[in-house]
Amino acid sequence: MNSLYGRDLITTQEWKVDELERVLDLAFEFKEHRFDHPLRNCLDRRTFFMFFYNPSVRTRQSFECAATELGGHAQFLEPKSMRLKSAKTAGETVQDAANVMSRYACGIGIRILETAIEEYGQGDQLLREYAHYASVPVISMAHDRFHPCQGLADVMGMRMHAGRNLRGKKLLQVWAKGGLVRSWCSVQESILINTQMGMNVTLAYPEGYDLDPEVIQWCEDNAAISGGSFEIVHDLEEAYDGADFVYSRNWMSPHFYDYARRHGVDTAKKREIEMAMKHDEWITTKEWMAKTNDAFFIHCGPVDRGSEVTDEVVDGPRSIVYDIAENRLHVQKAIMALTMARV
Amino acid sequence: MNSLYGRDLITTQEWKVDELERVLDLAFEFKEHRFDHPLRNCLDRRTFFMFFYNPSVRTRQSFECAATELGGHAQFLEPKSMRLKSAKTAGETVQDAANVMSRYACGIGIRILETAIEEYGQGDQLLREYAHYASVPVISMAHDRFHPCQGLADVMGMRMHAGRNLRGKKLLQVWAKGGLVRSWCSVQESILINTQMGMNVTLAYPEGYDLDPEVIQWCEDNAAISGGSFEIVHDLEEAYDGADFVYSRNWMSPHFYDYARRHGVDTAKKREIEMAMKHDEWITTKEWMAKTNDAFFIHCGPVDRGSEVTDEVVDGPRSIVYDIAENRLHVQKAIMALTMARV
Amino acid sequence: MNSLYGRDLITTQEWKVDELERVLDLAFEFKEHRFDHPLRNCLDRRTFFMFFYNPSVRTRQSFECAATELGGHAQFLEPKSMRLKSAKTAGETVQDAANVMSRYACGIGIRILETAIEEYGQGDQLLREYAHYASVPVISMAHDRFHPCQGLADVMGMRMHAGRNLRGKKLLQVWAKGGLVRSWCSVQESILINTQMGMNVTLAYPEGYDLDPEVIQWCEDNAAISGGSFEIVHDLEEAYDGADFVYSRNWMSPHFYDYARRHGVDTAKKREIEMAMKHDEWITTKEWMAKTNDAFFIHCGPVDRGSEVTDEVVDGPRSIVYDIAENRLHVQKAIMALTMARV
Repeated sequence: MNSLYGRDLITTQEWKVDELERVLDLAFEFKEHRFDHPLRNCLDRRTFFMFFYNPSVRTRQSFECAATELGGHAQFLEPKSMRLKSAKTAGETVQDAANVMSRYACGIGIRILETAIEEYGQGDQLLREYAHYASVPVISMAHDRFHPCQGLADVMGMRMHAGRNLRGKKLLQVWAKGGLVRSWCSVQESILINTQMGMNVTLAYPEGYDLDPEVIQWCEDNAAISGGSFEIVHDLEEAYDGADFVYSRNWMSPHFYDYARRHGVDTAKKREIEMAMKHDEWITTKEWMAKTNDAFFIHCGPVDRGSEVTDEVVDGPRSIVYDIAENRLHVQKAIMALTMARV
Repeated sequence: MNSLYGRDLITTQEWKVDELERVLDLAFEFKEHRFDHPLRNCLDRRTFFMFFYNPSVRTRQSFECAATELGGHAQFLEPKSMRLKSAKTAGETVQDAANVMSRYACGIGIRILETAIEEYGQGDQLLREYAHYASVPVISMAHDRFHPCQGLADVMGMRMHAGRNLRGKKLLQVWAKGGLVRSWCSVQESILINTQMGMNVTLAYPEGYDLDPEVIQWCEDNAAISGGSFEIVHDLEEAYDGADFVYSRNWMSPHFYDYARRHGVDTAKKREIEMAMKHDEWITTKEWMAKTNDAFFIHCGPVDRGSEVTDEVVDGPRSIVYDIAENRLHVQKAIMALTMARV
Repeated sequence: MNSLYGRDLITTQEWKVDELERVLDLAFEFKEHRFDHPLRNCLDRRTFFMFFYNPSVRTRQSFECAATELGGHAQFLEPKSMRLKSAKTAGETVQDAANVMSRYACGIGIRILETAIEEYGQGDQLLREYAHYASVPVISMAHDRFHPCQGLADVMGMRMHAGRNLRGKKLLQVWAKGGLVRSWCSVQESILINTQMGMNVTLAYPEGYDLDPEVIQWCEDNAAISGGSFEIVHDLEEAYDGADFVYSRNWMSPHFYDYARRHGVDTAKKREIEMAMKHDEWITTKEWMAKTNDAFFIHCGPVDRGSEVTDEVVDGPRSIVYDIAENRLHVQKAIMALTMARV
C-alpha cells in the first residue's frame, strides 16, 4: 500500500513536496486516461461522505463526479439536517459522528467557511476534530483557512500551460474588489503551495486586507526552503510587472467576523462589499495584463466578472480558468485514490 | 458514432421524425431488456447533472434511475443552493457554469417552470443559454414551454396499447379544471409530437385558456406535413366524440404570469384555481368516455384526481397512466444513450 | 428465489424468527466479506428510494451506503419537495405515487416519526398505505411505532460480543432523561425482537412513560412462545440488577402528540424536556453499571451524552455502540439483498 493511504488532507502545507508531486502525477494520468486508467475502479462500491456546512457549485459537482469516476459514490450531506450537538442544543457529538461514519465510508470531505462559522479558525478546528476521531481520511473541501484541492488544481493548470517546471516563474496573487465577500482559503492555499513549489510569489493587496499572519510566516519559510521567493506589495504597478501568472481574487477584511458578531452577518457583508468596491483599480484588466510577461490568467472560480476581472481578460486567449476548474476533478480523483483506496 | 451524439433536446419539435423514432425504438428495447440490453452500461461512471429550479417527483426519480440503469450517476442539484449571477446579485454566469459543468458531466438536465420564472418563455430562454455554452447535451426535464421526455413517453404508451401505427387515430387533448395551476409544457409537447407523428389531434378548452400561438402554428404546420390533422374546439361533446385517446390535463390561463407579477404568486394561484373550478364539466368522467371510440385514458402525471379525471376512469381498464409514467424511464434512458454515450 | 423476495419489513414482529435469523446470518456474512461476498453486486444498477419525512444522520448514511455496496443506488428523497395530496392541498395520491415508484425502483424505504406526524400511529398507517399499493418491498427506515433495522442491528451487536445464543440473558431496556424527545420506535422494536428471540427483557421507566399497550401485549405473547421473559419495573435497583445488556434511551410521554396539537410542537417539546430532566437518576452511570452482570452498554444512536448515559460508560470497554451503528449497514444490506434481489 502506498504511504498516503489513510492520510488526512487539511492543507497542502502539511504534506511534503514529493507527496504533492505524487498527487499531481496521478492527476495528470487521470486527465489523460479519464475513464480507462488502471485505477478507474479503485473505489468500487465505496462511499465517500461530503459534508456541506456551506453550499457550493463546483466543489460538490467535482467531488461527487470524482467518486463516481472511481467506481464509488459520494453522499451529499448537509449538517443542517443533522442533529449535531452544539453549545445550545442536544445532539450527537463530533466524536460519535466521526466514529460511526468511519464504519460506513472510505473518507469524509468537509466544507465549512464563510457564514457557517462565527470566527476565523473555527472551521479549521472542526475539521481537525473530525480528523482526530475519524479512522478514515478527512479531506478539506474548502474551509475558512485552507483549500488544498484548489491549490493542487491551480498548480496543475499552470503546468499544463507553462510546463512542469514552474521554478523562477512569477505568480501574482492579487486582491480584487467584488460583491461576494470571499473567504481566505483559496488564496492562502495558493501562496502556500506555490512557495512550497519554488515559485516567486507576489501577494498584492490594498491596506486593510492582511491575511493570516501564521500563513504569511509559512510562505516565507517555504520560499527559504524551496529557493523561491515571497513578497507582499500594495502597489499594482509593481505587482503586475513581469508576472507569468495572474490570479486575482476578492477576499474579506480581517475584521469581518468580529463585525458580523456585533452587527449581524448581513450588515457586515454589506459593509465589506462597500469597502471593497471603493478600490476601483483592483480588477484585472487588459491594461494591467499588458504589464506582465504575457501572463496566464488563473482563478479558482466562480469568477465575479466585472469586479475581479474584466470579460475581456477572462474570455481571452491567456485565460486558463476552465482548465483549472476541470483539474479539480483530476486532483480530487488522485487524492481519493491515494488516500482511500488500497492501491 | 450515431448522429444524435451531442444533441440537445429542448423540444421534440426540433428533432426530425426519424430521430424521434430512433429514441422510441431504443426505448422499447430498454423496456424489453431492462437490465440486460447491450447498452446497459453505456454511461459507465459518467455523471449527468440534474438542475431542479422546481421540485419534481417523477422527473427526478426517473432521470436519476435512468442514469443509474445505464451505469452512470445523476447528481441532484438545486440552483437555490448555487450562487448564480442575477440582475441583483453577484455570482457565476451561465456561461461559466455551463463551460465548467461540460468538463465534468456527459449531459445536463434542467427543469424550470411554474413559479421559478416570472414570465412565460423565461425558462426556455435559460435552457437555450445553457445549451449555447455547454459542450455536452442539454435536456429539458420540463420547462415552461416544452416537455420532450413526456411527449415521447406518451407516444410510447399509446403504441404499447394501440400498436405502432397511430396515424388516423384521434387524440383528444382536453383542458381540465384542477387545483395545481399547471404549466403548458406537457400539453404543448403532446400536441406538437402527435401532430408531427401524423395523428388527428383535437385540442379542447374553454374560452380563456389559449396556449402559445407559435406552438399552435407549428401544430398546424406539422399536421399539413405529416398528413394528420389539428383542430381546436371549445365544446366537450364534439371533443370526446370518437376519440381513441383522451388526455385531460389542467393548465393555467395566459394571464397567470402577468397577474402574478402585479398581485403576487399566491393571489394569482388562488385566482387561477377559482377560475378553473368554475368549469364544472371539464373533467374526464365515465360518461364522457362513453362518447369515445373506447378510448384509452392517458395522462402525464401526477394526476389531480377528482378534478382532471374521476377515480373510476383513471383506475379503470382503459387507463394507461402507470405505463406512461414507466415509459419516462425508458425514453430517458434512450435519449441519454443516444445523445451522451459514444454508441 | 428465496421466500423473502418481495416482502415488506414494517416491524420484525411481522416476520418469523427463522426469517430474522436468515437476515442476521447474511448480515454476519456481509460483515466478514464486506466487498467480496458472492451477493456483492446483487442490486446492480437497481434503484432504492429513500423517503425522509424526517431528517436523519445514520439512517440515511447507512441505507445509501448499503445500496451502493450492493451495486445499486439509493435516491435521497424528501417529501416536502413532493406534491403529495393532503386533506388541504391537491397533489398526487399515495396510490399513484406508490404505483409509479414500483415501476422505477426495487424497493422503497420510508422514515416518518416525531414532528412529521400529528398523532402516534399516523406514520405506521402511511407505511402500510404505501406497502398496500407498492408492488416492491416497503422497508421502515424508522417510523413512529417501529424500527426493524435497528432491532436487528442491536441483536447482531449483542451476538458479536456475547455469542449467538442470547437465551436466558437479561436485557435491560431503560428509559433515560434527555433533550431530544425521542419517538418510541427503537425501544419498541428492541423489546419486541428480543422477546421474540427468547431473551429476558426488563423494561424500566418512571411513571408516566407507558409505551403502546398493543406492543406490550405482543412482548408478553412473544416471551410466552419463545421461552424468554418480559417484565416492566419502575425501580432502578431492580432494573440494573444482574443485567447482561443495558440499553438506555429517552422516549416521549404518551401525551406528547395530544399536547402538541393543542399547544404547538415547540411548547410540547419544551414541556417534555422539562419533565424528562426532572428524573435525575435516570441516566446510565458507572455506578448503575456496577450492579449489572458486567453488562455491555448498547444504544441505537445518536447518543445523548450526559443525559442518557455518562461519557465514562459510553466510552468504556463494555460499550458496543459503534459496533451496533456499523451493524445497521450489514443488516440493511441483508434485508435489501433478501427482499429486493432475485437471489
